[in-house]
Amino acid sequence: MNKRKIINDPVYGFISIPSDLIFDLIEHPWFQRLRRIRQLGLTEFVYPGALHTRFHHAIGAMYLMDQALQTLRAKGHTISDEEVVSAQAAILLHDMGHGPFSHVLENTLMPRVPHEKISLVLMNKLNEQLSGQLSLAIEMFKGTYKRRFFHQLISSQLDMDRLDYLNRDCYYTGVVEGSIATDRIIKMLDIVDDQLVVEEKGILSIEHFLNARRTMYWQVYLHKTSLCAETLLTQLMRRARDLVKSGEPLFATPVLSVFLNSSEEAPLDLEAPGFPDLFTQLDDHDLWASIKVWGQHDDFVLSTLCNFMLNRKLFKLRFVQPGESAAILHTAREELLNKGVHEKDLAYFAVEGSISNAAYLTESEQIKIKMKDGQMIDISEASELPAVRALSKIVKKHFVSWAKNVSLRPEFQ
Amino acid sequence: MNKRKIINDPVYGFISIPSDLIFDLIEHPWFQRLRRIRQLGLTEFVYPGALHTRFHHAIGAMYLMDQALQTLRAKGHTISDEEVVSAQAAILLHDMGHGPFSHVLENTLMPRVPHEKISLVLMNKLNEQLSGQLSLAIEMFKGTYKRRFFHQLISSQLDMDRLDYLNRDCYYTGVVEGSIATDRIIKMLDIVDDQLVVEEKGILSIEHFLNARRTMYWQVYLHKTSLCAETLLTQLMRRARDLVKSGEPLFATPVLSVFLNSSEEAPLDLEAPGFPDLFTQLDDHDLWASIKVWGQHDDFVLSTLCNFMLNRKLFKLRFVQPGESAAILHTAREELLNKGVHEKDLAYFAVEGSISNAAYLTESEQIKIKMKDGQMIDISEASELPAVRALSKIVKKHFVSWAKNVSLRPEFQ
Amino acid sequence: MNKRKIINDPVYGFISIPSDLIFDLIEHPWFQRLRRIRQLGLTEFVYPGALHTRFHHAIGAMYLMDQALQTLRAKGHTISDEEVVSAQAAILLHDMGHGPFSHVLENTLMPRVPHEKISLVLMNKLNEQLSGQLSLAIEMFKGTYKRRFFHQLISSQLDMDRLDYLNRDCYYTGVVEGSIATDRIIKMLDIVDDQLVVEEKGILSIEHFLNARRTMYWQVYLHKTSLCAETLLTQLMRRARDLVKSGEPLFATPVLSVFLNSSEEAPLDLEAPGFPDLFTQLDDHDLWASIKVWGQHDDFVLSTLCNFMLNRKLFKLRFVQPGESAAILHTAREELLNKGVHEKDLAYFAVEGSISNAAYLTESEQIKIKMKDGQMIDISEASELPAVRALSKIVKKHFVSWAKNVSLRPEFQ
Amino acid sequence: MNKRKIINDPVYGFISIPSDLIFDLIEHPWFQRLRRIRQLGLTEFVYPGALHTRFHHAIGAMYLMDQALQTLRAKGHTISDEEVVSAQAAILLHDMGHGPFSHVLENTLMPRVPHEKISLVLMNKLNEQLSGQLSLAIEMFKGTYKRRFFHQLISSQLDMDRLDYLNRDCYYTGVVEGSIATDRIIKMLDIVDDQLVVEEKGILSIEHFLNARRTMYWQVYLHKTSLCAETLLTQLMRRARDLVKSGEPLFATPVLSVFLNSSEEAPLDLEAPGFPDLFTQLDDHDLWASIKVWGQHDDFVLSTLCNFMLNRKLFKLRFVQPGESAAILHTAREELLNKGVHEKDLAYFAVEGSISNAAYLTESEQIKIKMKDGQMIDISEASELPAVRALSKIVKKHFVSWAKNVSLRPEFQ
Repeated sequence: MNKRKIINDPVYGFISIPSDLIFDLIEHPWFQRLRRIRQLGLTEFVYPGALHTRFHHAIGAMYLMDQALQTLRAKGHTISDEEVVSAQAAILLHDMGHGPFSHVLENTLMPRVPHEKISLVLMNKLNEQLSGQLSLAIEMFKGTYKRRFFHQLISSQLDMDRLDYLNRDCYYTGVVEGSIATDRIIKMLDIVDDQLVVEEKGILSIEHFLNARRTMYWQVYLHKTSLCAETLLTQLMRRARDLVKSGEPLFATPVLSVFLNSSEEAPLDLEAPGFPDLFTQLDDHDLWASIKVWGQHDDFVLSTLCNFMLNRKLFKLRFVQPGESAAILHTAREELLNKGVHEKDLAYFAVEGSISNAAYLTESEQIKIKMKDGQMIDISEASELPAVRALSKIVKKHFVSWAKNVSLRPEFQ
Repeated sequence: MNKRKIINDPVYGFISIPSDLIFDLIEHPWFQRLRRIRQLGLTEFVYPGALHTRFHHAIGAMYLMDQALQTLRAKGHTISDEEVVSAQAAILLHDMGHGPFSHVLENTLMPRVPHEKISLVLMNKLNEQLSGQLSLAIEMFKGTYKRRFFHQLISSQLDMDRLDYLNRDCYYTGVVEGSIATDRIIKMLDIVDDQLVVEEKGILSIEHFLNARRTMYWQVYLHKTSLCAETLLTQLMRRARDLVKSGEPLFATPVLSVFLNSSEEAPLDLEAPGFPDLFTQLDDHDLWASIKVWGQHDDFVLSTLCNFMLNRKLFKLRFVQPGESAAILHTAREELLNKGVHEKDLAYFAVEGSISNAAYLTESEQIKIKMKDGQMIDISEASELPAVRALSKIVKKHFVSWAKNVSLRPEFQ
Repeated sequence: MNKRKIINDPVYGFISIPSDLIFDLIEHPWFQRLRRIRQLGLTEFVYPGALHTRFHHAIGAMYLMDQALQTLRAKGHTISDEEVVSAQAAILLHDMGHGPFSHVLENTLMPRVPHEKISLVLMNKLNEQLSGQLSLAIEMFKGTYKRRFFHQLISSQLDMDRLDYLNRDCYYTGVVEGSIATDRIIKMLDIVDDQLVVEEKGILSIEHFLNARRTMYWQVYLHKTSLCAETLLTQLMRRARDLVKSGEPLFATPVLSVFLNSSEEAPLDLEAPGFPDLFTQLDDHDLWASIKVWGQHDDFVLSTLCNFMLNRKLFKLRFVQPGESAAILHTAREELLNKGVHEKDLAYFAVEGSISNAAYLTESEQIKIKMKDGQMIDISEASELPAVRALSKIVKKHFVSWAKNVSLRPEFQ
Repeated sequence: MNKRKIINDPVYGFISIPSDLIFDLIEHPWFQRLRRIRQLGLTEFVYPGALHTRFHHAIGAMYLMDQALQTLRAKGHTISDEEVVSAQAAILLHDMGHGPFSHVLENTLMPRVPHEKISLVLMNKLNEQLSGQLSLAIEMFKGTYKRRFFHQLISSQLDMDRLDYLNRDCYYTGVVEGSIATDRIIKMLDIVDDQLVVEEKGILSIEHFLNARRTMYWQVYLHKTSLCAETLLTQLMRRARDLVKSGEPLFATPVLSVFLNSSEEAPLDLEAPGFPDLFTQLDDHDLWASIKVWGQHDDFVLSTLCNFMLNRKLFKLRFVQPGESAAILHTAREELLNKGVHEKDLAYFAVEGSISNAAYLTESEQIKIKMKDGQMIDISEASELPAVRALSKIVKKHFVSWAKNVSLRPEFQ
């Protein structure tokens, strides 16, 4: 059977599947499931083209890994075939632990379980099925492999994951400001002492990459309207779960029922043998199909929130300074009470929260520049642009978000 | 409330919502539902980026209508504001009658009900809600308005619908061969005797457009792998319905249940008052969510087909000459029997069918060229390219398609 | 010295110089001169962005050769490093024999000397300088090397030359209709019996490529306005040469003087030792700089034609049926006489001519398709599109072209 | 005669000529001459595609002006037809005073004459020819028109000039990092108190624009290799002029001779009646054609520098800290002396200089943001990005540049 297929990708043209193992991984049901998990969750409410999936992203990142390793080999670094296929496998599978609407899920159905942890559970299980063919890939993913740069290509400030998603998200949203010169950046990569570095003449491209990343953060990933949609979905899921907890019968696809019936006190056990099969049954369709049914539910709170979601009647959101939120929340609640929302339900319709781009540029794993004189220095020192230091500042924003178009409850009409 | 929003579109840059009526139509739940109906159904199995929705397409077509009418006005034709907004409304709503996986649906759940008919039902109902603001749009859509070119811009060989979907489908699939020079074609449009015509110097662009359309037909719309996926989905839906008919309990979202319980003998009544609300509850998520549950069903046929679908284990397909199909089908069935498929279930696993690009270039509504000497002639005569005549030939292909990876039924293992 | 440079190319991103020999060829003054020869001559009068040079095109074609050979190697064909570098050198140098405004030059200053012949003279001389390193490249270029496919990659219906110039010309003109899926076509190439073939699944891409080529022919290469400009330049050069022949002193750059003083009776000797150095001194700048000076010349014919050229006052042009030209020419001449043009000068202001896309799709070197069943058949048979046969028809067009804005000569004013 | 032509532009698609006056200006020989002046001078030595002309740029800027004024009108601002056509004329003509290789020319042949001054001379003369039709355009250009925003659209930190050249230079160089969202920025423009402002929601786009501009400065406009080429050309022109001054006979096109024979003591008189016709005869071809002839000149310095230029043997260049230059220059000169360069000629082969992006972001004409609360604040305050303030810092770099490949003079060989 011919496993050297070509995959069409508007972002890079054509992607060849480089080996039998990669082909088999792509064919695996757990990976095929990523076709049903959108990369950008609810961002489609702002950018209607942003419907691309984690499936496409993972394959794109695998392609960039291929390009990067070819570049490094061409610069004289010895990289074995096993290392190549392992690095490709690792980046291909690194996002497998994402559930539908990842951030919302991590806040509601699976609180405090990072997706990386689930990815690792799935990769370990897959490794069993594949008789250990993924052992090196898993080491690279975890960062325990001695040649450190492999982990850096998989997960760092300048990994193939970021390079792919920035360009891919730009392509599908249409936000041209975030597009980066992937091929140029990759051609500038090098290795020194098993660490990933960038040649000095690539400084401008790195600066541009950091700026593009920042732009995408505010223009797309943390776009106000996306936050509104995520806030809405979070409250909706919270209500659904509260109803289940209180014994209310609630339609749901079978796999979603399992998640709804779990709780913080009785969370799902990631180590249970059945967990991988259970987890990989859940995708975007379960949520949407259930939300549509809940839109007809008798519970006023649930059906209202679901219909908001379905018809894109999003919450209102205002960024606030510390101390401002109480007053704004108070006003919002008053208004909601006047429209007939019960006191006890207010918390579903008016919330406060905060976002930051904190996870974004961490202290660890800085981008190192290899100067022409042989020195290795950090990009924030190499750049003439004070901005690069500024970019590494964590920006945290607080917000208040509330429903603005709640229709009167029947008894108030 | 500010209704002059801007919508981000990777294909055209930015689309301004041109009027309050258009804004209200876009906000309507029936239109928002188009966010949940993919433009290209199962094509994502071939082109993973092809996830764009009818929502985005409809807005794009509305934008092109705006461009076309501005061009025609600039050439001195009188077009009233009411005509502009009506033409925009008509093209915006013209695809509202599409269900999920349109072709499959039209073959299984709603046999012989063309989506245009449903669009009209929905538009009429909307028109009631909007106190007749859509009356002129509906006339244009139906082709009963006296100024014929409006209908031609909505539905003809060179309508704004086609111009948008070709470019949009190219963008999201990455098939560059199908991209067309939309802005050039639109700038070449003119009106003579209330008929849409193309200026002579636009001939090459029209030829290119026809070629691009043909390319997209074979490379995308009728791609072999898409046909395999559609064939699979059709059989799967057929089985689900047969099970329902035989009284087998089957999980389904409530709205899908209604459709599954209808039948050719007892079809859904398009004229029933509740039909619009029922129809617009159905979308891609109902099918996918149900298919995922059916993948665990006890019925071997249903679960096998569903798992094929979920894991992209598609049917095999071969185009055949007349007379060849019987032998190929026979071989396929023998093989299936050997794997333990019951004789009575064979028809779900091995089928024949045919496709054509017939609906594509009809006899009616030819593209007229306005020659410099004032003559109006058909593009197939105006072009020096014999190909244009060739392009209008209907190509019909027969095929046989069958499951190749059926696992042994338990009792055969 | 580091010879592994990267060249920035908007069409392909980045092009790495693959070897020291290629680097040295690019650095050679004869090759650097191609920076001063535009690829599309006077097409800038229609498409103002079409200013790209033969330098850029040659490097692009070399890049595609690299891609093609990598693809063929990946399919298991043995290709030696020497063959790779020779094929790259051959395609890099294949256009070196182009002079400024190639078609015009071939019609006036160097009648009946095809540029391929000059390329060969230059390549042979270079080969001497490089101690025979180009011997294999020259064999490939001439088609005498036993492995025929190398010549086909350099010069055939589907060579890397065409693949590059179509995409490049599209990019710089902005005529999107001519863009082709280069990477897809290259991935479909294969070799059978040392002949270049295309895999069956590439048929649609080849059809698209042939259509795109035809579009570019009529929309760009033979665009009416380009013909007008070429006709004008031809007449202008003819007049300059006639003046020189009659002993009139005429400013010209030294190298252009040599060409102007040659004649059909005393042509330049391609085999003379000094020819390569002489020829490679001539470029676009010599013509433009001289035309600007001639615009001030006392000779009415010369100065008029030059000012037409400088200020883009192009000739008028009409395509004619056989038999029509005499009457149109007669009218044009009458008009010119009325404006005071001397009878003896009429032939510079009103001419007839013809163009064809003949050289374009020859009988020889058809594109072969490798069908899945192993057969090799011609694309015109493999394609379901009758158009492909139609495309191979040579279209010849006759035209009459004449000056329309001749100002009155002083004595007539 | 039909003056409503369409111009093909790869950057924006199609540009319609909006009025008869604009058509006549484009047809004027002085404007057509811009076809022969490259926008980016010698940048083609780094980016071989960067051959676009000031002609194309001027038309692009005129198109953006059209878009901007349409946007402002749509926001309710009254702008008369005369104002529209005048603003378009002004931006179209604003660069007419550029000579070939503008920076070099301003340093050698026309020292201390800014191109804006020549543009104004030409515009005034044209205005006479056009009976005052350009009077308002000239006022806008000079900034004396009372509605200040017109001047800001023509010449400010956010003018249509910059918006066009950034995108155009990106397109032709292939440096994707510099591309900006022109249409988005334009849609965010507004007017307050006759001043151009940007809506608050456009802040990110402005930040991105400023970053892109900075990137282009270092990656393209002040690219090290471009500086080398400019330095070389400057020395070459200096030598040519010195030879002329010393009475050495030197080939040159007639118009270039006039410039070479002028001097700082006897400069060309911009106010002389013949100046416009003289100036507009000079273009890139005069320089290249002469340089080619000079490459054969007996003068060792001139011919060496010219052949460096023709064959892209550029100077070496090193950026230096204050105080470093003397030592580096000393070493370079020693080396040159050893190769046989005469002491008196050293200054042509080893120079120091400096560049800055000073003219770039001036104190005046800051970009104002219109906040949602009605306040007008400067972008550097509105932005959360400290970088914006950093961007406005003038970066000045000193360099030393010297010939590295001087061949021995004959007597040393």
